[in-house]
Amino acid sequence: MKQNKKYFTCGPTELYPDIGRWLQEAIDQKLFSITHRGKEYENIFSGCVTELKALMNIPETHSIFFMSGATECMERIIENLVEEKSAHFVNGAFAERFYTTAKELKKEPYLLSADWGKGNDLSVDISKDTELICITQNETSTGALSPMEEIYALKDRYPDKMMAIDIVTSSPYVKIDFKKIDIAFFSVQKGFGMPAGLGVLIINNKCFEKTLEMKEMNFNIGTYNNFLNAYKYYTLNQNTITPNVPGIYLLWKVCEHLNGIGIEKIRKETEEKASLYYSELKNVNGIEFFVQEEKYRSKTIIVLNVGEKQKAIKEKLISEGYIVSSGYGKFKDTQIRIANFPMHGVEDCKKIIEILKKI
Amino acid sequence: MKQNKKYFTCGPTELYPDIGRWLQEAIDQKLFSITHRGKEYENIFSGCVTELKALMNIPETHSIFFMSGATECMERIIENLVEEKSAHFVNGAFAERFYTTAKELKKEPYLLSADWGKGNDLSVDISKDTELICITQNETSTGALSPMEEIYALKDRYPDKMMAIDIVTSSPYVKIDFKKIDIAFFSVQKGFGMPAGLGVLIINNKCFEKTLEMKEMNFNIGTYNNFLNAYKYYTLNQNTITPNVPGIYLLWKVCEHLNGIGIEKIRKETEEKASLYYSELKNVNGIEFFVQEEKYRSKTIIVLNVGEKQKAIKEKLISEGYIVSSGYGKFKDTQIRIANFPMHGVEDCKKIIEILKKI
Repeated sequence: MKQNKKYFTCGPTELYPDIGRWLQEAIDQKLFSITHRGKEYENIFSGCVTELKALMNIPETHSIFFMSGATECMERIIENLVEEKSAHFVNGAFAERFYTTAKELKKEPYLLSADWGKGNDLSVDISKDTELICITQNETSTGALSPMEEIYALKDRYPDKMMAIDIVTSSPYVKIDFKKIDIAFFSVQKGFGMPAGLGVLIINNKCFEKTLEMKEMNFNIGTYNNFLNAYKYYTLNQNTITPNVPGIYLLWKVCEHLNGIGIEKIRKETEEKASLYYSELKNVNGIEFFVQEEKYRSKTIIVLNVGEKQKAIKEKLISEGYIVSSGYGKFKDTQIRIANFPMHGVEDCKKIIEILKKI
Repeated sequence: MKQNKKYFTCGPTELYPDIGRWLQEAIDQKLFSITHRGKEYENIFSGCVTELKALMNIPETHSIFFMSGATECMERIIENLVEEKSAHFVNGAFAERFYTTAKELKKEPYLLSADWGKGNDLSVDISKDTELICITQNETSTGALSPMEEIYALKDRYPDKMMAIDIVTSSPYVKIDFKKIDIAFFSVQKGFGMPAGLGVLIINNKCFEKTLEMKEMNFNIGTYNNFLNAYKYYTLNQNTITPNVPGIYLLWKVCEHLNGIGIEKIRKETEEKASLYYSELKNVNGIEFFVQEEKYRSKTIIVLNVGEKQKAIKEKLISEGYIVSSGYGKFKDTQIRIANFPMHGVEDCKKIIEILKKI
């Protein structure tokens, strides 16, 4: 039974229309039966890495590690790069999870918090003993982003501290200068329009000096997915374990497809659609933007306060063929969150705006 | 381009023929776009758990946790259940990995080793302070199994010690009395004929008392996938993180399919095919069984010493349409390993035997 509604949810979200065809092609070629320790698989791995690096302009200084999701990325980052002190800018649920991850791993993280819906104040001072600065560049729970320029400025003030950014719902849209960013990570069920089950960690090879130091100091840096092991296999175009091959194969095909369109075009379209949401809904009665300061408003996750009409709005959208996300946590029943990813067409975006205006 | 060779490899291996169709059906229903925190997904989760429990006769005392693979299962088991002392029966590469995992996590595991190709001596005494006994029930690298009766006898001698068995390449064939087994785990790219990327951990809820104790003693039990968190979500028919939804969906469909055939029929067929390999190849010149003692010979992984003819044999098999695995580690160039999983038909098995006899 075909389902014809379109998912404008924050992820999992609408898939790229070719996902099914790409999977069937791989099955026909028996690519999910081949050994993950041979040339044929290495071609899939390096195909994926090459296309992803081209799409996101990732330099040779950085490696790509495949994980089971963004949450594993958080765990492995703390485990492998932090002896004791990470500093976390927290203004929503996913930044909070990164901070909690550090605590659960028995570290002593610093908390730099802002209210939900607000931007992070990246001009604050960071404690001298901080080893890693963690920023959720685009907070999926609230729709607040940290502008890349402010992130670079923070790095310029602390060039010797490592910096990790969560780009789960801003990639591949967000433009990153990897000369200034040590670590970034995302999962594929958001802007890459894929089924869930794969996380991608982009990391500057310089970071591994710290991992090696920690290993020599007898820290627990994890087992198969510690960064020294992951790097060893990365250089072989392989994974540490039998990986999610369909995920890696599909990411290759999706990146190839997006490179065909061109990342600058994707960015322009994303910004145009975001502008439509923010300009058209500005003065609509009963709708207000959760993120009030314009410069912190996410281009990819639009969060609207809609109050008690939330249920009716969601139902109306469904009846017109669109599924959006509810608010997160305590805003579950009073907000809607609309994803604005590359596969979300401008015509649909306009229709959603029209529906919202009429309520 | 269709590929028509059949994979008799130890995993990844031949897929079930319906995998592509099942994936497309899920995509048509947009099941990979839905939220993993809602009723619709919970139905997939509980469908999968119900069919798997029926197939493997897993009682209500045991929970199912989905991981990224068997290697993650090893890591999480040690992290959550061992303060200091696990005991590992090691007679091959995967048992060795389990043991190494414990060392990497800064535990002090006991090593009970046997030569590759030999069975484990499960009649030995286990140190009093052992918290968890780990057995690779079917060692994929060598084709040596530990008979379940011997595992039960060991458990009967040490009823208060937890026991974990690696059934990566023996499930779903292996018949397990879960009253005697606390923990078992496997990955889906072997006997379940699926693409890689999903591990399944079956665990007695009693084990969580130990995890709770360790948490209270301030041990590092990991973050999102610690067993207390995993159990909480399991009872909700959800996962700790956005999971590999295609993997869980396909496992549901594969288990449903296997339950349709009936597990007893699958066991009988597996044993018949194994008997063919072991009886027909017994006196063939130039071939000997790596596992000499009959009772330790795996029914699902047939390992043959073939010496310097290995390359020619593999090539001949390929020319006839069959791909088998090489030996593992130092036996890479002198052994072949043939998988005997439920999707491997008896006619193909007979043809492989005929080809091997002629060499």
